[in-house]
Order: sequence, then structure tokens, then C-alpha cells
Amino acid sequence: MDDKIILTGIKPTGTPHIGNYIGALLPLIKMSENHKTFMFIADLHALNAMHDAKEIRQHTYEEAALMIACGLNLENTVLFRQSDIDEVYKLTEFLMNVTPKGLMNRAHSYKAIVEKNTEAGIDIDSGVNMGLYTYPVLMAADILLYNSDIVPVGKDQKQHVEFARDIAGYFNNIYGETFKLPEPIIGEDTGYLPGLDGRKMSKSYDNTIPLFAPSNELKKKIMRIITDSKTPEEPKNPDESTIFQIYKAFATPDEIAGFRKMFLDGGMGYGTAKTILFEKIDSALAEKRAKYEYLMSHTDEIDAILEAGAQKARMVAAKTIAKVKKKMLGL
Amino acid sequence: MDDKIILTGIKPTGTPHIGNYIGALLPLIKMSENHKTFMFIADLHALNAMHDAKEIRQHTYEEAALMIACGLNLENTVLFRQSDIDEVYKLTEFLMNVTPKGLMNRAHSYKAIVEKNTEAGIDIDSGVNMGLYTYPVLMAADILLYNSDIVPVGKDQKQHVEFARDIAGYFNNIYGETFKLPEPIIGEDTGYLPGLDGRKMSKSYDNTIPLFAPSNELKKKIMRIITDSKTPEEPKNPDESTIFQIYKAFATPDEIAGFRKMFLDGGMGYGTAKTILFEKIDSALAEKRAKYEYLMSHTDEIDAILEAGAQKARMVAAKTIAKVKKKMLGL
Repeated sequence: MDDKIILTGIKPTGTPHIGNYIGALLPLIKMSENHKTFMFIADLHALNAMHDAKEIRQHTYEEAALMIACGLNLENTVLFRQSDIDEVYKLTEFLMNVTPKGLMNRAHSYKAIVEKNTEAGIDIDSGVNMGLYTYPVLMAADILLYNSDIVPVGKDQKQHVEFARDIAGYFNNIYGETFKLPEPIIGEDTGYLPGLDGRKMSKSYDNTIPLFAPSNELKKKIMRIITDSKTPEEPKNPDESTIFQIYKAFATPDEIAGFRKMFLDGGMGYGTAKTILFEKIDSALAEKRAKYEYLMSHTDEIDAILEAGAQKARMVAAKTIAKVKKKMLGL
Repeated sequence: MDDKIILTGIKPTGTPHIGNYIGALLPLIKMSENHKTFMFIADLHALNAMHDAKEIRQHTYEEAALMIACGLNLENTVLFRQSDIDEVYKLTEFLMNVTPKGLMNRAHSYKAIVEKNTEAGIDIDSGVNMGLYTYPVLMAADILLYNSDIVPVGKDQKQHVEFARDIAGYFNNIYGETFKLPEPIIGEDTGYLPGLDGRKMSKSYDNTIPLFAPSNELKKKIMRIITDSKTPEEPKNPDESTIFQIYKAFATPDEIAGFRKMFLDGGMGYGTAKTILFEKIDSALAEKRAKYEYLMSHTDEIDAILEAGAQKARMVAAKTIAKVKKKMLGL
């Protein structure tokens, strides 16, 4: 365990699938074993697109329950709800004043909309609200509030950390050394799982296997994995099989070797292979699913964990704000 | 006293002059006699242009001392420092999500810079920080937080109140009736005073008479009022005289009539007229100046007043935020 501080935010956007689990959750949980981690459910970030309070609240519980059920180390990790932190609103407003507008104009998500609007021949800012436009500043506040050293991100989010560094730099320039410059760590893409149709598992392809579906639903989904039309007798290439790729993510090396052999030898139909996969996933997730279901029917326990997290997070955040307020307002 | 709530913000931008006093302060103080008023020193608004914490802090004291010394009714008025209100940062962030970016693009102050940059052939957003760009949202939060009915503004600030109405409307549309729509009251221009050179008294013309200068400095300034070259013996037109215009703002009707007669009759030189004006202003302001000086050398008393104000303001603001948070996040 080194003394680097990790910061990560999870957007409460909906039911997680096993692709998220393998590609994002497990790496985060593994990292939290060895690092002091601040992990927040980013309900404020949801607001620029989601207007249903119940949905945001429900998804916030889901994401928190998910992390806890999957074994997040709550000794090392401060897990909290973003909107509970009074200081994040403040730092956002303070940082606005050192952030050049030109920086926001270069944000990928904003530029994508401008491009789309331009192609459509409508006003470039059509459909853009100020929550969306300013959200890199909120993101910078999230990162800088906790003296984060490292922010694990997907490739497409690297810019958020770069912006946080830029904004920290602008502040330090005007008001003197105040903020540490955080570093992004780009998650490797090797962890990604194929979905039911063989493409990357993703909500936008509608090819996902839900992480915590009941057994019967999980089975139904797995039975719908698309295969080629080889007969049971024919040998099959495991490396071209979605079934095998998903299996690999849940099994031990010995189990993987055995399953591979069954593919290569022939004699196993896809139906049997899917049943083997189902049983593996079902048993691998059974305990976590039970814990998740328990938590989701005891949201008061989630609230207690999030509240304790918020208290810890605010102790750090309050110190940051005190420094910033002193430098900007002399108060 | 009707039950309308007045909201007004004062930017801590520097030493006030008698033009501010007559044109802005006195009308506000008069209004506060008959209305529940929320009056804040807008130190957060200063941040997008001022980077000297000491200066902002000092000007904040000056503006507060000024209002108190000039007779602000502290029974009816909640006087506070904007940055003391945790809820204003929150409401700003929440309102971002219902504010179309197109609205900000139409802000007069932003458009003026874009125009200037365009003329200069440089990037339109050059020199624009996000504090400046988003400050109409902060302004809307200032107004909406306290259920304000009426916002007295200069002509050039009318747009701020219109934006606050627009943003309130967007919010109400999405989340149901929540915010009252505030009304601007445009201050009449009749109150404005001429400066030393006869043009409107204004810092930008460098023709001001400071409100609370020591007597000898006040006298020196008044002696520099520009006049025509009439001899003492010649009759003079009071309505064309800067001296007379300023005198009118401080004297009783009887005194004004007497002074007018002295102008018209002839026999009074401009030096004498200036001395009469000086004595009038000096005596009219003596008590207020003493109170101001007392407060400025007892800033702990100002702090106590501002803190008491912040506590009262936060009681109202907390209720607004509770409503908003419930509607947006279900919390």
C-alpha cells in the first residue's frame, strides 16, 4: 500500500451488467485493497441529463449496494454521495473564476454536441444546458477537493483529469501553490467482455447480461448468446466463442484449460457450453447477489454507510475549502 | 409596509462617492424602511475580476459600514456577506442544470466582450473566465434563494432579473411550481448627480467627490468643481450650475430656494458658492462619516452584524434548498 490517494466517481445511470463488473468494478475494488480511495456516487453529474429524482436516488442506492456487495474495502475506501458534500458546490463556484471559457469549449462531450448541431444546421448550443457545459469544473472540484493523486479513468475520460490539472494550475498560478496536480491512470481495455451478439458488452448495443439478475433470468440471457451453427460433434475454436470469452472472466486457470479442451475436442454442443457458463456465473455471483439484494431491501444500511463516508470526506474537503476561501476572499 | 420581499446586492468594488450615495444608497435605505429586505455584499461576484483577497475583504467592510452608517434599517434588513451563505453555492450548481447555454450567450456583459474581441480579431472568448460567463446563474441563485419579490436595479442590470425569471421558469417547468418570479424595479435616473466636470459623477470619468473623505479633502475636491468664468457680481443660472445641482441633493426646500436666489441676484462668486456647498455637505455627512469611521476601526462590530445577517438569511435559504434538493435528487 503506497500513500497515493485514489479518486473515483460512479455515475448513477442504471442497472450494471457483467461487462461493467469485469471491466470497471473489479479493477476499482482491487485498487481499493491497497490505496486510500475516495469513491463517490456522482448524483450531481446525473442532473444535467436526468430529471427524475426517484430514478437518480434509486440508481445511487444500486451503485452503492453494488460496490459493497462486490467486496469494496470499506476500511480503505470513503464511499459517499457527491451531493452530500457541501464543499463540492463551493469549490465548483470558486474554480469557475480561474477557468478560462476556452477550456470548456474544448471539452469532448460539448464539442460532440456542437458538431452534431452544426451538421443538423441548428444553433450550435441547441440542447446544451449549463450543467453539461460546466461539468468539467464540477469534475475538477470532485478531484481537487480530496488531494487526489490518481484518478483511474477510461480513455474517453482522460480529458477530465487533464482539465482538473489545468484548472489546478490556473489557481496555483494566481493564488500560489494550493492544489496537487492529479494523474490519470487509463484502464486497460483488455478487460472488456463481449456481449450476447459478440460485440463489446454495452447498454447502447442492448447486448448485456445483467450482473445481479435472478438465476432464471440470467440463464435465459445466456441461452441467447449468438453462436455459429456448428453441430455438437464438431470441434470449436474457443477464442472465437463469446461463451468462452465470458467464461474466462469468471473461472480459475484450471477450469479455463478444461473448458478450452472441451471446445477443441468436439462433442460439446453450444447448449451444453451455455449451461456450463451459466452455472459458473451463477455460482460466482450467488453470494454477491444475495448481499446486493439484502442491501437493496435495507437501504437504511446503505444510507448509514454513505453518511459515514460523507462525514469522512467532508473532513478532508473542509480543509481544502478553508485554504481556498482564505486565498480568494481572505476569510 | 407591504409584504413584498426586496433583494439587493452590492458589489464590493471600492470607495463610494456622493453620486452613489444620492443615486443608489439613499433610495435603497428608504425602501428598507418599509420592506423586508435582503441585502448582501456580493463578494463572490467580485471574484471573476478581483484576485486580491485583502482588497475584496476591505471593500466588503466598507460597503457594509457605509450602509449601516447611512442609516440602513437593520430591523427590516438582513445584511450579509454573500460568501457566508452555503446555500447560494448549492443553488447555483443546481440551477446550472436547467439553464440553457443559449441564455448565457445573450448576457450583455458577455456579448460586450465578444464584440470587443471580434473587433480586435482575437478569439471571441479571450479573457473570459467561467466566473464571468456563468455569473447570471449565481445572480439568479442570489435572487431566488430568498423568495424575492422585487429587485431594484439600474437600467443596465434589468437583464439579470429577467434571466432569474427565465431560470425560475425553466425550473418550475421541469420540476413543478417552486420559485416565485421576481420583478425588477428600475431606479429612476433623476437622482443622478453631476461630477466635478459637470458630467454624471462616475468613477470612470474620475470626477467624483468621495462620500466620506475628511473635511479638508472634501473641501479641496469641491473647490475643483468646474464653473464658467462669470464674475462674482454677475447673476448666474443655478440650473446650469454643478454647484447648485449638488447642493439641491443635500439641502431643505427653504435652503434651496435661498441659494437659488443668491445665484439669480448676482453678488455671489463661485468661490463663495463652493464654500456654502462644502459646509452643507460636510455638516450633512458629519454624523454618518463619524459612524462610518468608527465602524471601519471596529470591524469586529461589522463582522457581528454580517454574521447575524447570514444566520437569518440561511434560515430562509435552507428551506429553499431543501425544496430544490427534494425535487431534483429526492433527498
